[in-house]
Amino acid sequence: MTKEQILQALSNVEEPDLGKDLVTLNMVKDIEIDGNKVKFTVVLTTPACPLKDLIRSACVNAIHMLVNKEAEVEVVMTANVSSKRNGNGALPGVKNIIVVASGKGGVGKSTVAANLALALGLDGAKVGLMDADIYGPSVPIMFGARGERPMMVSVDGKGMIEPMEKFGIKFMSIGLLIEEREAVVWRGPMASSALRQFVTDVHWGELDYLVIDMPPGTGDIHLTLVQTVPITGAVIVTTPQDVALADAKKGMAMFMGKQINVPILGLVENMAYFTPAELPENKYYIFGKDGGRRLAEEMDVPFLGQIPLVQSIREGGDYGTPIMASEDKVSRKAFLDIAGATARSIAMRNANIAPTKIVDIVV
Amino acid sequence: MTKEQILQALSNVEEPDLGKDLVTLNMVKDIEIDGNKVKFTVVLTTPACPLKDLIRSACVNAIHMLVNKEAEVEVVMTANVSSKRNGNGALPGVKNIIVVASGKGGVGKSTVAANLALALGLDGAKVGLMDADIYGPSVPIMFGARGERPMMVSVDGKGMIEPMEKFGIKFMSIGLLIEEREAVVWRGPMASSALRQFVTDVHWGELDYLVIDMPPGTGDIHLTLVQTVPITGAVIVTTPQDVALADAKKGMAMFMGKQINVPILGLVENMAYFTPAELPENKYYIFGKDGGRRLAEEMDVPFLGQIPLVQSIREGGDYGTPIMASEDKVSRKAFLDIAGATARSIAMRNANIAPTKIVDIVV
Repeated sequence: MTKEQILQALSNVEEPDLGKDLVTLNMVKDIEIDGNKVKFTVVLTTPACPLKDLIRSACVNAIHMLVNKEAEVEVVMTANVSSKRNGNGALPGVKNIIVVASGKGGVGKSTVAANLALALGLDGAKVGLMDADIYGPSVPIMFGARGERPMMVSVDGKGMIEPMEKFGIKFMSIGLLIEEREAVVWRGPMASSALRQFVTDVHWGELDYLVIDMPPGTGDIHLTLVQTVPITGAVIVTTPQDVALADAKKGMAMFMGKQINVPILGLVENMAYFTPAELPENKYYIFGKDGGRRLAEEMDVPFLGQIPLVQSIREGGDYGTPIMASEDKVSRKAFLDIAGATARSIAMRNANIAPTKIVDIVV
Repeated sequence: MTKEQILQALSNVEEPDLGKDLVTLNMVKDIEIDGNKVKFTVVLTTPACPLKDLIRSACVNAIHMLVNKEAEVEVVMTANVSSKRNGNGALPGVKNIIVVASGKGGVGKSTVAANLALALGLDGAKVGLMDADIYGPSVPIMFGARGERPMMVSVDGKGMIEPMEKFGIKFMSIGLLIEEREAVVWRGPMASSALRQFVTDVHWGELDYLVIDMPPGTGDIHLTLVQTVPITGAVIVTTPQDVALADAKKGMAMFMGKQINVPILGLVENMAYFTPAELPENKYYIFGKDGGRRLAEEMDVPFLGQIPLVQSIREGGDYGTPIMASEDKVSRKAFLDIAGATARSIAMRNANIAPTKIVDIVV
C-alpha cells in the first residue's frame, strides 16, 4: 500500500454536509503505512460532528474495497473547528460567535444557551458563554456562581476581566458584577456600553465557539452586538405556542433583514411536551404540538430539535448544575442532538456562506 | 325607623380593608324608608370588591340588631372606583394606572394582564389594556385581533387613535400598527417614543382601570412610562423557579427604588403547577412549589394568588379568546380571585398612600 493509493481511495469518501470529498477538503492528515496496517487522521470541522462514525466507516470501507480488503485501518478523528471570521472585528481569537435568541422571553433561551455551550465543549472544543441579558441575567444561577466575582488580569498591559470557568466552560454575565437583588435600571446606551465591554474588556482568549445568550426582544443590545462583532449565526429558541412563534418570527426577521444579515443556524423547540417522571408514556402538549417544527419548515431554516419540559432540566438550571453537566442520560440526549445539529449547521455555514459583516449603518 | 337611626347603625359597620366605618367613609347613599322596609346604596371602591357579600350581610345585621329586627333591608351595591390621580399628568380621565411587570419574560405577564383587565371589567368597571411590549406584543393574538387596524378619530380637533374594543375592554398594541412578521428593530429612544404615543395619542377616554402589559426587563420603556404618567401600582408576575424569582426581585427593586417609588400592589405566581385534564388530582410542580408565595412573604408584598399551568388558559390566549372571556369556570376562578385581590389592593393603596409622582429625574 502507498500513500497515493490511500489518498486515491479516500477521495471517494464524501463529507455529506459539505458535499465534497475528504481529500479535496484537505481533511486527511498523517498517513502512516506499516505492512498491511494503515493509520491516518481525519480532521473534522467540529468535534461535535454527529457524522463522525459514518465518515469513519466510509473511510474503512473505501480502503477495503479500493486498496486492500485485508488492511487493518485505524482512523484517528480529530477536529479543527472551521471559521469564517478571517480575524475581522473584535475577538480575533474566537472562531465562531453564535447568538441564542428568541424574540419572546421565558422560552428557555438561557437553558438552551448554557447546555448548548456545555455540549459543544464535551468533545474537546474550547467554548465560552456570554450572558448578554443585561436586565435578567440567568447564567450565574445556572452555573452555581451566585455572588461570585471574576478576577481582573493584565493582558498586554491592559486590565481585563478574566471570565469565570466551570464545567470546562468560560462564562461571563452582568450578574457576576452586581448584587442579585439590584435592578439594572438603565436606558439603552448604558446597556449597550456594558455589552461592548463584555466583548472588548473580557479576556476570552482562543475559543472555537462563543455562545451568546441574548435578551428577549429586538432592541438595543441586538443592534449593538451586530455592530460590534460579526456573528457567525443565530440559533432561535421558541416554545410551540402561537404567541411565542409570532415573536420567534420577529426575531428571525431581524437577523435575516438585509441590513443585519446574520445566517439562521436553526430553530430549537423548547417545552415541546411534558412527561411526568412516573408516567413516561404520557406526553402532554401543554403549549401546543410541533409549533416549532412547523415554523422551521415555514421559514425554511434547519430544525435543530425538540426539548421536552422536564423538571430535572429546570432544576439543573435553578440549582447550579445544568443538565449537560449532570449524569441524567435521558435529558442530556436532547441537548447532545441539538448541539450536534448546531455544530453541523455552523460547519455548513462556514463552507457555503460569505463571512458575516459588522453592521455599520446607524439604526 | 329614621335615616338617622340607619346611619347610626351603619356607622358600626367597618370596611375591613380601609379600617373605617361605612358612614365615615361616605359610602352610604340614597336611604329610603317605607314602613318596615329600608333600602340604601353602598358605594364600594371597586365593583370587583371580594368583600361585597360580607359588607352586605354586616349592614343587614347592624340594622336588625340596632334598629329593628323585623326590618326588610335591601342593600344596593354599587361602586365608584377610587383614584389617587388628582388629575395630574397625562390621561386625566383614567382613575388608576396598573402596570403588570415581571423582570423575566415568558412568565405569563400578558396572560395575567389580559385576564386581569377582563376580570376587573366583569362587574361594570371601565377597563383599558395597553400592550407596552413594543418588541413582543401579544395582545393582538390574545384578543383575536391579528391583522386588524385601529381607526383614527378627531378629539378636540386633534387626530387620535381610537383603541380597539372586544369583550368589553378597550385595547391598544404596537401589533395593531405593524405587520406581524415584521420585527421592531428599534433602539430605546424610538421604542420610548412609541410608548409615549400610546399614552398621549390614543383616545382612552374615561377609565376606572388602565392595565399596562409591560415588556420584560427594567429598561427604557419602564423609565419612559414612569416619566410620562403617575402609576397607581405594579402587579408583579413570576413563575416559581429560582431564575424567575431572581428577575422578579429585580423588577420589584426597580419600582420600589426611591427615585421611581411605585407601590407594589402584589405578586401573582403563574404556572404554579400542572394538572392533566384527565388526572385532576395530580399536581406536578414542574417549576418548583410556592416560589412566588415565598417571595411575596420575603419582600413583604401582598400575595395575589396562584394560577395553574393549564392548557385551556394557553389555548385561550393563542386562539383569541382569553379564558376570562370563556365559559371555563375552573380556570376563570383563579383570575377572578386575583382580580378581586388586586382591586382590593388598589383601593387600600388609594386610601393609604400618597399619589405617585411622575419621575422627573433623568436616568
